[in-house]
Amino acid sequence: MSNHAGSMRIAELSRRSGVPIPTIKYYLREGLLAPGELTSPNQARYAEAHLQRLKLIRALIDVGHLSIAATRDVLASVDEPGGTLHERLGKVQYAVTPVLQVDADERSLERAAREAEALAHRRGWPLKKESPAWTLLTQVLAALYSLGQDDLAGLLDDYAEAAEKLAETEVRCVLGRGDEESVLEGVVIGTTLGDTILAAVRRLAEADASARLTPEASGAT
Amino acid sequence: MSNHAGSMRIAELSRRSGVPIPTIKYYLREGLLAPGELTSPNQARYAEAHLQRLKLIRALIDVGHLSIAATRDVLASVDEPGGTLHERLGKVQYAVTPVLQVDADERSLERAAREAEALAHRRGWPLKKESPAWTLLTQVLAALYSLGQDDLAGLLDDYAEAAEKLAETEVRCVLGRGDEESVLEGVVIGTTLGDTILAAVRRLAEADASARLTPEASGAT
Repeated sequence: MSNHAGSMRIAELSRRSGVPIPTIKYYLREGLLAPGELTSPNQARYAEAHLQRLKLIRALIDVGHLSIAATRDVLASVDEPGGTLHERLGKVQYAVTPVLQVDADERSLERAAREAEALAHRRGWPLKKESPAWTLLTQVLAALYSLGQDDLAGLLDDYAEAAEKLAETEVRCVLGRGDEESVLEGVVIGTTLGDTILAAVRRLAEADASARLTPEASGAT
Repeated sequence: MSNHAGSMRIAELSRRSGVPIPTIKYYLREGLLAPGELTSPNQARYAEAHLQRLKLIRALIDVGHLSIAATRDVLASVDEPGGTLHERLGKVQYAVTPVLQVDADERSLERAAREAEALAHRRGWPLKKESPAWTLLTQVLAALYSLGQDDLAGLLDDYAEAAEKLAETEVRCVLGRGDEESVLEGVVIGTTLGDTILAAVRRLAEADASARLTPEASGAT
């Protein structure tokens, strides 16, 4: 039991989070976790907020596969004050968008850029080319073209439609939270862990579709 | 110009794929790329199939963030003969599903397993608990519960519905290809690069939804 209500020593923080003490100390050194309140030169106490932040760090690293540096950037974007809520959501979302190194050929890249623009136009999305999501879309489309997967690239509007419906629901969900900090945390978690939920349920749904649609399956029913 | 129609030396393979020669040699040593046809003890020639395979390797590594070992497993699953098409699709899909190391608390894991089962029941999906997609779903749900994000976990059916519609379209698309090898390649590419397309368009759609739904945005319109 802790002596101060809602505060704990590093051993309890470790026990309750499941994160080993050396790892917690590493996160403290790397600036991912704010220092605790010093009660003596060698002793610090941590609040419930530290525990929640520690779980978030682990989720971003273990589930979102973010690097230490990317995790630091994401947390900094959550903590950075100022701007409208929309601007703050944008900053957080930029921080949780992966940056790829893809070397597709020039022709595939140009075609991808054209198709991404045309998609934005069709969906009525604002064309913010500085957004890392644009870069990501252009690069993955270029990879598809360079692999000769035009049929899969042709499903772009199906992806966009599914994403649009989901985004509306997700954004309403996190905006429904009371305070701005919870909203921003929801964007971080919803965006990164949401990618993984989608990856999982898409595979389950594909397995189901394959069972129904492959020739031998239809033959058997 | 190559002397043999449809065959090339490693230099041309490198130029056309954009992959440096030392990297190609590394893939050959690691068994990701099949050896070329030896024309002398120190000279091999490569076919168009090598070029396509090389592009696929790069897409899996650069876009899908697969490790060398995971890429080798995926390619082996594509090349492994035998079984029905549905079984072969399943093997390939298992190979392209990420394996996470998530240490959520016992209670969150149990709740996640219950919710995943309930979801499968509601959607009429076969309950194949040996599938890595089940493990993935359970782990990411457990992470959400452990973070206290019950509202986001509550959107599971929205994710499932979006995934179902998409999966149907995707599976029909790749099954529409003539030969089984192209179908399997389509599953590899559609599943891994599809994750990234979804990640990109979901972020673009979220930014659009945020612009419409945040309080200051609605105030401004």
